Parts: sequence; structure tokens; C-alpha cells
Amino acid sequence: MSQALFPQAHAPDFDSADPSAVRRAIREGRFTGFTNLVAREYVQGNLVAVPAAHADAFELYCRSNPQALPILGRSEPGARSIPELAADLDIARDTGGYMVFRDGDLVDTPRDASPVWHDDLVAFVLGCSFSFETILQRNAVRLRHLDEGDVSAMYETTRETVPVGPFGGRLIVSMRALTPADAIRATLLSARYPQFHGAPVSLGLPGDLGIADLAHSYGGHGLTRLRPGELPVFWACGATGQNAVRSARLPLCITHYKAHMVVTDLPLPKD
Amino acid sequence: MSQALFPQAHAPDFDSADPSAVRRAIREGRFTGFTNLVAREYVQGNLVAVPAAHADAFELYCRSNPQALPILGRSEPGARSIPELAADLDIARDTGGYMVFRDGDLVDTPRDASPVWHDDLVAFVLGCSFSFETILQRNAVRLRHLDEGDVSAMYETTRETVPVGPFGGRLIVSMRALTPADAIRATLLSARYPQFHGAPVSLGLPGDLGIADLAHSYGGHGLTRLRPGELPVFWACGATGQNAVRSARLPLCITHYKAHMVVTDLPLPKD
Repeated sequence: MSQALFPQAHAPDFDSADPSAVRRAIREGRFTGFTNLVAREYVQGNLVAVPAAHADAFELYCRSNPQALPILGRSEPGARSIPELAADLDIARDTGGYMVFRDGDLVDTPRDASPVWHDDLVAFVLGCSFSFETILQRNAVRLRHLDEGDVSAMYETTRETVPVGPFGGRLIVSMRALTPADAIRATLLSARYPQFHGAPVSLGLPGDLGIADLAHSYGGHGLTRLRPGELPVFWACGATGQNAVRSARLPLCITHYKAHMVVTDLPLPKD
Repeated sequence: MSQALFPQAHAPDFDSADPSAVRRAIREGRFTGFTNLVAREYVQGNLVAVPAAHADAFELYCRSNPQALPILGRSEPGARSIPELAADLDIARDTGGYMVFRDGDLVDTPRDASPVWHDDLVAFVLGCSFSFETILQRNAVRLRHLDEGDVSAMYETTRETVPVGPFGGRLIVSMRALTPADAIRATLLSARYPQFHGAPVSLGLPGDLGIADLAHSYGGHGLTRLRPGELPVFWACGATGQNAVRSARLPLCITHYKAHMVVTDLPLPKD
């Protein structure tokens, strides 16, 4: 477990492998880090909550861009639970990091979204590459960003998603620095899991996605420097949903904050 | 159909889609070209014939290096037929281009190997990437070397095969210049067909295989110049068997000559 993740420099006071314990620690402010190294045997997801009147359009937008936005769950309007993902889920508090958009502008990044949650919101949970990272590591793919206590870098591409209603915008991708052999293995493995973005959308040539400089990541975080012998491999990323709510300019949308994912009780597939 | 393939500049006088007609045309000297654009819906293979005393060792060498040397058929000692591949196959005449090795040295490249064929030889037919090229094209992967009437370039790598008995040597690969999206698609598709070399062994970085300069291909042929936006994608190649017979220095070995493959009657899998 990296020091970066637990800057207290001592072991966490919760069972970081147990998704319910992780959510409780987040909810109580005892865990504030990225979720990519906790509850690793359980599915994690992106959060996008939109006004109920636009929920069906957003669902169709996701289904029209399934590599970026694979739907794992959808709440009832106003509900902060999605029982099929976790019995005790409070989606307005359990990621521990939120982005609040009003009319397309990011207006706040609270740790608890319950004060601004609204009966009008429908929450979507969308598959995340953190889930297949566990699967890649099980199969001996080296993920150097994890070894270094980092997350994967994200980039905004020049590729437009398929628009639906007010939702559109450019594809966001996540990047992992891999050897050629691991790039091939990761391609074959990830393709088996369309619910976690499936196969890469590009590799080897950042310019193929309009990425001019790997050093300039979306959000400014993640491992961005390749070593000799490594290729950049790019997967569609659920952060694409953040672009979509920005461009939709709706009165209120709420998403998770970077790398603070919805931790579910769904076990990862066993290959 | 390319002019390079039929320099007569007129249509061939045989049904180039029919493997039996192709073999007959080769045997009678009416077709002398590369076989990558004929009998495209049928399996083609590499030929390696070794002395019977070493046939079991060669089979084990192939099974120890299955990505390069997937066995499609093996003859009885001295037999020039492999009935499970084609009823009328005369393996000493039907590829139309042979390499004859004595004590590891290439001593002749006849169009007809029957004068030197020997009762002591056992012939192996090994899977070839020409077979999956048809499958890639069926799935809209662009193979520019075919569009340009060329074959894929081959390279000797710095990777050693797993040696067995007298057989060993470095891995040979074939290269295709692909866009990133096609590289991903080709990886996923080819992985389904281990009998035709399976997934790529490397991509993107020629240095990963010790290839210093793509312009210097094994045998000096094939498409070697990438265009912007293309990646080199490398598959294990049956020509690895030629290296193995060179290094084994046996009294007599016979292989096919470059890109003149054994054309079988086995239909390609239908995906």
C-alpha cells in the first residue's frame, strides 16, 4: 500500500479489501484517497447524476458510446441508493469526492454531495478501468503507475462521441505505459470485459487521438512519462461523462471527483 | 489481382481461388508467383522437411515454439503426400519454390524438389500468416502491403527459440504496417487462430525484438516503410523453421522458398 494513498504513514484503520468497510471509511472521512488500490477484488464505477428529465437521454448517450460509458447501474429519481450495486450504498457520500456542475460550470468539489443532492437527480454508475487493472495484474501485466503509487493518466482526445440530446463532447481516455508484450496481453484481456471499457481504443501513437503531449494529462495527474521500451496504451474512460455534462449545460449535474470511484459490492469476474 | 503477381499482364489461365487448380498450375509451371493472393479461402502452410531420424525432435521443437511453428500436418517418411491436407498433394512439386539445405548450407533453390527428394525425409506443414490475412481483411483490417501487391516483410529477431535436439536459432517474425485501431483489431482477431501464429509477439517498437532498421528485412522483400499513423505489428513466422534447419546442419533439409507456400484444401475457419 503506497504512502501517497495513506499519507498518515500508518496502516489504515479499516479493512481496505472490504468494499463495505471502504465505503464506511470514506463516508466517515477516515479515507480520502484514490480508490484504485482499495477493494481491488470488487467492481468500481464512475458516477454521473443528471436531472431526471434528461436521464433517458443520458442512458441512450451511454448506450451510444458503450466503450466509454458502460452502464453498471441506474438509480430511481432522487434515490441515493442503487441496491443492485451495494445494499448500503449512499451514492451522495460514498465516493468521498464530487464535482458539482451548474449550467455546465464546475461550481464545487465537495467531499459530501448530500447537501446539494436533489430529488430531481438520477444517478448512473459506469464501468471503470480500475476494475480491469486488477485483472491485468492477476495476469502478470506490469502496471508501473500502480507500482509507483500513481493512477493512470487521462487525456482529452480530438474524437467526438456520438451525441444524444444535450449530451456530447470529446472522448476522454486513460493511458497505461506498457511493454509491447504487455500491451498485447492487456489488449486481449481487457477485450473480454466490455463492462470495464473493453479493448483499448488506440495505442502506440498519441497523435492518433490528437494527443500532442503526454505530459499534459486531463486533470494534470497520473503517470505521463514513458520509459524506453514502453508504449502508451489508451482505453476509453468514464470521465467522458464529465465532458458530456459540461457540454449539456443542465441546471445541476454531479459526478465523482477524479479517481474517487463508487465502490460496489459486485465481485470482479474470476476470468 | 496485382501485375507483380501475374507479370504476363493478363488473367491467369487457372481458377486462382481453387487450391487444386493453383497447385496444378504451380506444378505445371504456369504459376510461379507468391501464393498470398491465390486460394485465399484455404489454409496455406510453410514446408520444412527433415531427415526421418530427426523428425520427432523437429516435431517437439515445433511444439516447444508453437507461435512460430504450429503443426498442420506431417508426412510419413519419404512420402510426398499428406492426405489430410489435400488428396492430390505432391509436396515436392506443389509449392513451386524450394530451398535445399545440405549440412546447414543453402545449396539450391529449385522450382521442383522432386529430383532431390529422399526416402529419408519427413515433411512438416506449419501454419502461415497468409491464412489470417484473409481473416483480417474479411474484418476490414487494411493490409496495405496487399493493396500494393507486396507481401509482409520478415525480420530476424534477437529472440532465441526454445531449442530441441539439433534445432534452435532465432525467431523470425512477419510485420504488417497498421493503424492503431487496426493493430488492436488484428491482435484480437489473430489471437483466435493459434494454428496461424495467434496474437502478435510485439508491436510498435522494432527495438523490442532487436530490429534495428525496418528497411532491412529477412530475405530483402516485403513492405518495410511505414507511413505516418502506422505501427509495425509483428507476428511469429514459420520462416523460423528455416533458421532451425540451418542451425541443425543436417545432411539434407528442404523448405519452401519465400512466400511460395503449401496450398491446402482445408477451408479457412468461418470466424
